[in-house]
Amino acid sequence: MRVLSRDIQQYTGQEITIAGWIHKKRLLGGITFINVRDRAGLVQCVVKDADEVEKLRGMQIGTVVSVSGTVTEESRAPNGAELHQPQITVNVPVTEQPAIEVDKRIDHKPENQDTLFENRPLNIRNLQEQQIFRLRSELNRYIREFAISQEFVEIQTPKLLAGATEGGAEIFKLDYFGQEATLAQSPQLYKQMLVGAFERVFEIGPAFRAEPSMTTRHLSETTMLDLEMGFIENHDDVLQMVERMVFQVLTNVYKEHADELKELRAPDLVLKPDFPRYSVAQVHEMYTEATGEDTTQEKDLIPAEERWICDYARDNQGCEAVFVTEFPVEAMKFYHMINPDNDKTVLWGDLLFRGLEIATCPQREHRYDVLVQQMKGAGIDPKHPGYKYYLEAFKNGLPAHGGCGFGIDRLVQKTIGLHSVKEATLFPRDLNRLAP
Amino acid sequence: MRVLSRDIQQYTGQEITIAGWIHKKRLLGGITFINVRDRAGLVQCVVKDADEVEKLRGMQIGTVVSVSGTVTEESRAPNGAELHQPQITVNVPVTEQPAIEVDKRIDHKPENQDTLFENRPLNIRNLQEQQIFRLRSELNRYIREFAISQEFVEIQTPKLLAGATEGGAEIFKLDYFGQEATLAQSPQLYKQMLVGAFERVFEIGPAFRAEPSMTTRHLSETTMLDLEMGFIENHDDVLQMVERMVFQVLTNVYKEHADELKELRAPDLVLKPDFPRYSVAQVHEMYTEATGEDTTQEKDLIPAEERWICDYARDNQGCEAVFVTEFPVEAMKFYHMINPDNDKTVLWGDLLFRGLEIATCPQREHRYDVLVQQMKGAGIDPKHPGYKYYLEAFKNGLPAHGGCGFGIDRLVQKTIGLHSVKEATLFPRDLNRLAP
Repeated sequence: MRVLSRDIQQYTGQEITIAGWIHKKRLLGGITFINVRDRAGLVQCVVKDADEVEKLRGMQIGTVVSVSGTVTEESRAPNGAELHQPQITVNVPVTEQPAIEVDKRIDHKPENQDTLFENRPLNIRNLQEQQIFRLRSELNRYIREFAISQEFVEIQTPKLLAGATEGGAEIFKLDYFGQEATLAQSPQLYKQMLVGAFERVFEIGPAFRAEPSMTTRHLSETTMLDLEMGFIENHDDVLQMVERMVFQVLTNVYKEHADELKELRAPDLVLKPDFPRYSVAQVHEMYTEATGEDTTQEKDLIPAEERWICDYARDNQGCEAVFVTEFPVEAMKFYHMINPDNDKTVLWGDLLFRGLEIATCPQREHRYDVLVQQMKGAGIDPKHPGYKYYLEAFKNGLPAHGGCGFGIDRLVQKTIGLHSVKEATLFPRDLNRLAP
Repeated sequence: MRVLSRDIQQYTGQEITIAGWIHKKRLLGGITFINVRDRAGLVQCVVKDADEVEKLRGMQIGTVVSVSGTVTEESRAPNGAELHQPQITVNVPVTEQPAIEVDKRIDHKPENQDTLFENRPLNIRNLQEQQIFRLRSELNRYIREFAISQEFVEIQTPKLLAGATEGGAEIFKLDYFGQEATLAQSPQLYKQMLVGAFERVFEIGPAFRAEPSMTTRHLSETTMLDLEMGFIENHDDVLQMVERMVFQVLTNVYKEHADELKELRAPDLVLKPDFPRYSVAQVHEMYTEATGEDTTQEKDLIPAEERWICDYARDNQGCEAVFVTEFPVEAMKFYHMINPDNDKTVLWGDLLFRGLEIATCPQREHRYDVLVQQMKGAGIDPKHPGYKYYLEAFKNGLPAHGGCGFGIDRLVQKTIGLHSVKEATLFPRDLNRLAP
C-alpha cells in the first residue's frame, strides 16, 4: 500500500512504499539523495547501495517510481523523516532531460512569462507553482461556501448566445449551425432573469472578451464569479454582501493556508470587516492633491489611482480593500440604475483590492419602462431578439436587485501578490496566446 | 424587516412584513386569497378589507409586493400560517397578464418543450420547475464536496483551444485574433497534463459539441464534470472512485431532499454501494437472448440496451446504476488504454444510470511511445501544435491514470426522472435553439 509523503513519519522504523516522481537528485559525499514528489509533498531517500545508485544514473527528473525503504526520523528532511535502504522500481521511465528545472523557485518576472507558459506542463510540477493553483481551488471553495450559506442557488448559464447583449466590449463570434452566435462576456442577462425565480443566484464560470489589449490585468478568457440578489433595500445591501464575502474568504485563506502564503511570499493581510468607501470624485481629488497629477476630468479611475487609493486606505484605514462608488453616468451600462439622489451618478461600486479592481457591484435598473428607455438611450433596440426574453422577465415583475461580476483570476493574483493576472491562470489566453 | 415565508409560523400573533411576488389570486366566498411567493416558498394572505380587495383588482401575477399583516396559524396554508388584515404595498407593478400560468404543475411532455423554453423567464417561477434547478445546485455541491474530500484539486481550463484535439465529434470553430480557434469538447488533454502535478484534478464546466442531432440526450452545450486521477493500480481504481462518488451523491440527495424529490415524482432510489458490472459482450448476449433482437454485432450499446440492462440490474441486483466494461477497440479514442489481457478490448467503463450513459470512465494510455503510436494509428499527427504540450507531459513522466467525463445535465435528468436532458438545463442549446 502506498504511503503519502506527509504521513511517513508515522511509520518510523517500518518499511513502507511510496510512489511519485523523481523531483531532485543530489550526490553528497558518495551518497545519492533523491527527493520523490507526490501530491502531498516530498520524501527524501538516501541511496547508498551501489546497485541502486547505478540504477539512478539513467533516471531523469520526472521518472515515475515506487520506492520501498525504512522510515528513519530526520528533522532536516521534508516531513521530518527519510527513507533508508531504498529499493527503487521504475513505473514510467523518463529518458530525456527535462527542458526546465522544476525544483527551483520560479522567478515571476514579466520577461519570464513566455517561458512560463510555454513550459506549463512541466513548471506546474514545481511545488510553489502548484501552490498558486491549490490556493485558487480553495478560494473557489470558500466563495461557494459563502454563497450557499447565504441561500444563493448555483446556476449554469449558456456561453453560446444569439447576440452580443451587453454591448461595449469586444466579442467573439462563431457559426452556430448556420446562424451567428457569440460567446458570453458574462452571465449578466441570465442572472438577472433568474432573480425572478430564485432571488439569489451565483455562477463561477468562463467569460470571453476579445480584448485586443496586452496588459497585466486582461485575459481573453477569464473565470468570473457572478452573484445577483433580489429584494434589496438599496445599493448598500449589495456592497455589504460582497464585503462580507470577501472578508470571510480572505480571512479564511490567510488563516487556513498561512504557511503556503508565506512560502509564496504573499503580503500580510490588512483588512477590516467594513471596507472604506470613496466616491470616484473623492478619489480624483485626493489623488490630485497628493500627487499633483490632475485626474479630476477622468470618468473612471486610472490604474495609478487604483493603486494609490488602496495604499492610502491600507496605511490610514487599516484596510487594503476599498469600494469606489458614485461612478459618473457617462460610464454606465444600460442595465445600471441611475442614482435617484443625484442623476449625474450611477449606483455602482467597484471593489478594489491591493491596487486592482476585482469586482464591479452595481444595482440594476429593475423598472421595465425605465430600462427600455435606457436601452434606447444607449442605442440598443429593445426589440432585438437578444433582449426579448430578458425584457419579459422585467415586464412580469423583477424586484430591486444588484450583484457583482467578480474576477477570480484577479482575486488569486492579488491574494498571492503575483505580478500579472496571467500568472494566476493555468493556461492563459491573450492576443498572442491560444496554447497550451 | 422582511420575514421569509418558511419562518412566518414563529411569529404567530405578531404583525410582520413579507415581500415577494403575487403568485396566485383566488376569490372564495367574498374573500380574496393571495399567495405571495418568495425564495423560500409561499405565504397565504387573506384579504377581506374592501380597499385592499379593490387594490388587488389591477395587480397581475408577478407583481412585486410587500405585505404587512398578522400571522395566524392555519394548518391548511403553506408553512402552517397565513397573514390576516394584510396591508399590501406594490413595489413593482405588473400590468399585463403573463403569457403562461406559473402556479400549475408543468407538464413535461416532449411536445411542450418549445413552450417551456420559449417562456423560460416565466416558467422558472413555477415552484416545481425551480426545484429541479435547486436540486441541480445541490448535486453540484455534493460532487464537489466528494471530490475535495478525496484530494482532487479544482482546475479551470481554457475553453478556447488552438486545435480540435480530441477528434471524432463535431466542433465549433471561431476566429481568434486572426487565427482559427475551436471550442473545447472537454478538458481531456488539460486534465491529463495536470495529473503530472496534482495527481487528482476535477472541473465542472461547459463543454461544446456541434452535434447536428436532435435527441433527448444531446445538447450542443453541456455541463461536464471531469475527474482525473493518477497513480492508479488498475482500471478498477477509477471505477471504484466514480462508484463511491455516485453512491454518496445520490444517497445524500435522496436523504436530504426527500420531500422535493417526491413532489417532483422522482422514482425511488434503488442503489447499492457496489454497482453491477457487465462487459459490452455480456450485455449484447443478455439483451439478445431476452428480446430476440440481435445486437451481438454492435460495437457500442444501443439505447434500448442501456435501458434494458439498468432495468435488469435494478430488478435482479437491487441497483439501477451499472458499469458496462470492456468496450471493443473499434470504439476507442487514441488516449484510451488497450486491455493488456485482451487486446480486442479497451480499459473503459461506462456508467449507466436509469437507462442512460451518464459517465465514461476509461484508463488512459500513459506510456509516451505507445501513445504516439496510437495517435498515428488514429490518423493524428503527433507533431500538430495542438498536441505538442500534451505530449511534453508524457515525455516527462505521467503515472498510470484514468478518470471520467460525467454529464451533469444527464445526472440531473435521471435523478429527477425527466424525459429529456434539456429539461434538466436552464437554457438548453441544440440544433434549433440558441435563445433565450
